[in-house]
Amino acid sequence: MISIRVVLVEPRYEGNVGSVCRTMKNFGFKDLVLVKPCPLGDFAREMAMHAQDLLASARTADTFDEAIEGADIVVAATGKPGARQDGHVRYPFFNPKELKEMLSDRSGTVALVFGREDWGLVNDIVERCDIVAYIPTSKEYPIMNLSQAVAIFLYELSGFEGGNVALAGREMMGVFYEHYRTLLDDIDYPDFKKDKTLMMLRRIYGRAMLNEREYFTMMGVLHEIELALERARKRE
Amino acid sequence: MISIRVVLVEPRYEGNVGSVCRTMKNFGFKDLVLVKPCPLGDFAREMAMHAQDLLASARTADTFDEAIEGADIVVAATGKPGARQDGHVRYPFFNPKELKEMLSDRSGTVALVFGREDWGLVNDIVERCDIVAYIPTSKEYPIMNLSQAVAIFLYELSGFEGGNVALAGREMMGVFYEHYRTLLDDIDYPDFKKDKTLMMLRRIYGRAMLNEREYFTMMGVLHEIELALERARKRE
Repeated sequence: MISIRVVLVEPRYEGNVGSVCRTMKNFGFKDLVLVKPCPLGDFAREMAMHAQDLLASARTADTFDEAIEGADIVVAATGKPGARQDGHVRYPFFNPKELKEMLSDRSGTVALVFGREDWGLVNDIVERCDIVAYIPTSKEYPIMNLSQAVAIFLYELSGFEGGNVALAGREMMGVFYEHYRTLLDDIDYPDFKKDKTLMMLRRIYGRAMLNEREYFTMMGVLHEIELALERARKRE
Repeated sequence: MISIRVVLVEPRYEGNVGSVCRTMKNFGFKDLVLVKPCPLGDFAREMAMHAQDLLASARTADTFDEAIEGADIVVAATGKPGARQDGHVRYPFFNPKELKEMLSDRSGTVALVFGREDWGLVNDIVERCDIVAYIPTSKEYPIMNLSQAVAIFLYELSGFEGGNVALAGREMMGVFYEHYRTLLDDIDYPDFKKDKTLMMLRRIYGRAMLNEREYFTMMGVLHEIELALERARKRE
């Protein structure tokens, strides 16, 4: 079973928040978290129409980390990334259909994260996401209205049940990445490459969406590498 | 080649019209016709963002017929129809993915028709459409925001090129349906069934999307039936 959480990071226009509530209810989703939202008043309620219950039950969070607590996979919904300096952060990326296929046999909570209307998701947040997703839009005008972008992701994911393969949670994967960083330190991996390599690792494992058994196996592999290094060093 | 026209019938909120322009430009579409729209002012332009060129170039029409002139296939975008009295008008219906598949080898202009924000498309208009399409939404709250519904259809159809099979145009099909009505009159088909049967015929041929060759063959069949009737009557 896949359950979907929608996370809006610093939404600036209350009308958009209301419209997001409406489209969530249209597609049968309920879990909405707002990180440092703008004030929500009459216009938000007006745009929510018959989804005012959802607007009222939305949680607010002070930090991104608080918003994604308990999520097993965190998906950054971004504008289509070009060949930019931050390619290693936003690449590879998947469209909503591909995202759905990737999740097809999985089970867990997926957080879909959407950025501010004016500048989208900053790299600092995208880096902490497991998967980068985008909606294929025109090069001429790629920036979508926030609620329309949410509508398209939810349209793709509605009625979708996922499978039974329990995902290795975010905390487990955090331990794995830390372990890997330690290994890179240990083998004197060049400092200037380290962050990019770890980012790429996160993208690879993020889209692979490890199950628990795979997680323990990969942790075992890291452990064995370290033991082998120790043995080799003792022999010197 | 498929080209897409978006037709909004009597949109009541200028913000929605602006948002529709934006999503059209996001997905690379340009042909927008507004039937008796509300006044379009600053808020429409604000919501159109960088698609104000599209807002400025949108055509307005006084009637639905004027709006669909030149279209080969007219698609009614409706809320999901239930088991209502008007089932014969709104049934069968197809979701945006199915619509795309149906169009995959075709060539021509497809008009996507969206109704008023408050009551959607009235039967009088749906009856004149060839295909009924809907977005699968929650039973609890099926009515979507207009611009979000447009966004989802355009998301499905963007980058889609269609094929080379020229569709029999609306005018040709109009002649066919009239011919068929004459045949039903001629064979004393029960009056109380006639309209429903012709509606069903329109739904069948609408989704089948005849090419020109098929059109001429079917017209020939009607003609042959009439000649056979004439011959039989002379023998009596």
